[in-house]
Amino acid sequence: MNTLSLHAAAAPLRVGIAGLGTVGAGTVRLLRANAELIAARAGRPVVVTAVSARDRHRARGIDVSSLAWHDDALTLATDPDVDVVVELIGGSEGAARTLVETALSRGRPVVTANKALIAIHGAGLASAAERAGVALAFEAAVAGGIPVIKALREGLAADRLVRIGGILNGTCNYILTAMRETGRGFASVLEEAQALGYAETDPSTDVDGIDTAHKLAILAALAFGRPVDFDSVHIEGIRRIGAADIAFATELGYRIKLLGIARRSDQGVETRVHPCLVPNTAPIAQVEGVFNAVVAEGEFVGRVMLEGRGAGAGPTATAVVGDLIDIARGSLVPAWGAISGSLSKLTSVPMSACRGSFYLRLDVRDRPGVIAEITAVLRDCGVSLKSMLQHGQAPSALPDESVPIVLVTHETREVAMQEATARIAGLDVVVASPVMIRIEAG
Amino acid sequence: MNTLSLHAAAAPLRVGIAGLGTVGAGTVRLLRANAELIAARAGRPVVVTAVSARDRHRARGIDVSSLAWHDDALTLATDPDVDVVVELIGGSEGAARTLVETALSRGRPVVTANKALIAIHGAGLASAAERAGVALAFEAAVAGGIPVIKALREGLAADRLVRIGGILNGTCNYILTAMRETGRGFASVLEEAQALGYAETDPSTDVDGIDTAHKLAILAALAFGRPVDFDSVHIEGIRRIGAADIAFATELGYRIKLLGIARRSDQGVETRVHPCLVPNTAPIAQVEGVFNAVVAEGEFVGRVMLEGRGAGAGPTATAVVGDLIDIARGSLVPAWGAISGSLSKLTSVPMSACRGSFYLRLDVRDRPGVIAEITAVLRDCGVSLKSMLQHGQAPSALPDESVPIVLVTHETREVAMQEATARIAGLDVVVASPVMIRIEAG
Repeated sequence: MNTLSLHAAAAPLRVGIAGLGTVGAGTVRLLRANAELIAARAGRPVVVTAVSARDRHRARGIDVSSLAWHDDALTLATDPDVDVVVELIGGSEGAARTLVETALSRGRPVVTANKALIAIHGAGLASAAERAGVALAFEAAVAGGIPVIKALREGLAADRLVRIGGILNGTCNYILTAMRETGRGFASVLEEAQALGYAETDPSTDVDGIDTAHKLAILAALAFGRPVDFDSVHIEGIRRIGAADIAFATELGYRIKLLGIARRSDQGVETRVHPCLVPNTAPIAQVEGVFNAVVAEGEFVGRVMLEGRGAGAGPTATAVVGDLIDIARGSLVPAWGAISGSLSKLTSVPMSACRGSFYLRLDVRDRPGVIAEITAVLRDCGVSLKSMLQHGQAPSALPDESVPIVLVTHETREVAMQEATARIAGLDVVVASPVMIRIEAG
Repeated sequence: MNTLSLHAAAAPLRVGIAGLGTVGAGTVRLLRANAELIAARAGRPVVVTAVSARDRHRARGIDVSSLAWHDDALTLATDPDVDVVVELIGGSEGAARTLVETALSRGRPVVTANKALIAIHGAGLASAAERAGVALAFEAAVAGGIPVIKALREGLAADRLVRIGGILNGTCNYILTAMRETGRGFASVLEEAQALGYAETDPSTDVDGIDTAHKLAILAALAFGRPVDFDSVHIEGIRRIGAADIAFATELGYRIKLLGIARRSDQGVETRVHPCLVPNTAPIAQVEGVFNAVVAEGEFVGRVMLEGRGAGAGPTATAVVGDLIDIARGSLVPAWGAISGSLSKLTSVPMSACRGSFYLRLDVRDRPGVIAEITAVLRDCGVSLKSMLQHGQAPSALPDESVPIVLVTHETREVAMQEATARIAGLDVVVASPVMIRIEAG
């Protein structure tokens, strides 16, 4: 066991940072701005000694002239003046993966903000860290400044969680919030988000749900103490959500959120990312704009919600340096909360085995008998209807013009709803692709 | 540095529990129900070997027959089969204090849920723990199952916080929520809360703000890295909040919450507990019933909010066992985030030096010139009026009957408002004690 007096007397922790984008530069800035406070809490100074990035001369608002510069990030793993490697390159393969693997194999602890890397290769990397007896820390990979990894891995470690999930992507939440507030469509709001820097030029990782799925895979592994399993995550994004869906959801007393949800049942663990209708009154419905929120539900602890900024230089750097302080203190918790051999064998439940209630928006021809046709399909598939929303056609409408109707079902099997939706889509009276959105309690 | 393989092979952590009330019995139950999961996460089994309570034969829903029984809690500190002492007796003095001091002096780590003890004697106890090189852990002392101590001491350790606070007492939040939902007065709702077990027979520790102040003192010490200072906390409770105030607050777009607030300014740290008007739209206004919520605000991380159950056997036991898992893992973080000698010298700012805006409810005689008299006092004290609410008198009212008026001020000095309130209270036209409530952004 380490002792406090030993910490206070110890040498500085020397940090090598690979990647000097927003988060990398923010980490350097934070370590410098709060050097004294960080040293007091870490028990010794935490100092950046080396950095690596593509362009040495790019303006970053930080002075790196006193630091060792590595053109090749990989050489950070062997720099004798580096005790811990911070990987902020990004991407699940290539330079980021090689750097982390090399650093761990050389017995150097690693701190990373790389959710794709941890979601996809986290099991093997954790084993490598265990073999080397060093930390692999990734608080910054999920929900930025919200210390959710620590909360799950340590704070709630005593409890058996039954559910974990939340709003894990600020870009999607910003878009959905702006759509609701302005009544505008997805494409127009996305364009604005790109102009404001809230969305990337290629927004697919965010809006198609991939980023949320990376984070959910990590949370689910921690929450349920099982090896991380990104491939089993069911993933849908928000591109197909229309202004009409936002308006209908509001009318029904819901908000639309892109949620990542992992739930433990008798059959195993279901992990899924998709847009959801959540009741207005649910705390998570109140989480708007670029904010993230995670809800954990345990048998003993009940529901705990954590909310904050999920991205940005400051929040993410806070998480990176929090991990560095843990390492400086000598704390060593297994990456997934328990050593690889002690993880559970809980299997993944496919989406087809899930249950829930559903919102279904259809554009139908305004003809007699339409409702009868649709409800017959639902009945044949064993889907029970809870409510229906249909507004009268505008007086100016042409004969045979389409009108929207919205169906809300009772709880039913996912496969039954999929089958019903496919059959309804094939009806002559249905003029556009149905929009099916799952309903969640929040 | 400890290694993971060492953990896996290590002997069980043997726990002695003093106090078998709701939380004590819940802790035994949790350690047994989740024994396998806890062992995997702790790296070794965590087992209760000894207990102490007043009445050996009381029914508690747990079987203690296999455990060593101590009639005197103090002997847990010397039981050779106890590695760590869990203090759940409560109270800042007497048996609880003696037990914790003795255990630490014998080099035994201590886990406690005792907020009064930590708020009042936490500085000295932390020094004793440091001298012995063992942990003093108290996650369960604040906000039950919400891992807020860990979030502040470790997760957000890199950041300089500017503000910490929140809803820290479920009893008060339950009472204020029920008053708003039913329109009933404080006394009637308190009686109901007592019948439901949400409030104690002697409710003063809760409703007079003492419990919130204990927790706030602990949070402020952690957030600002300075020695815990309970004596400097300004404390007001909720007894004087009337049904009229709840109704006026609603009309003005606010909810009334008992908040503990600590803020760092150029002058030092202000710590205060009092009822507040918070805007309906603030996330903390949505935290209702027995739930607790803590909002931390840092220079880099921005705002982080944590919400969950602040009391009860399950949530509190989760926090206690989370601390035990940390100890079993060999983690050793200073009780206050940094060793005693490294804590900051930030001074406490008295309430009189604070600033804010205010709600003031007056019962006045309905006579010409009343408003002029009152606003003249405000002007003379340098308090600027933002808005005023006055409803017409009921047609059935008798001449000279009193009517309520509500004033809302712009931001002003606390002392100026205190002076104005005292002078207004002394006016002939003011028929009852004015109710002054501070307004907070949330």
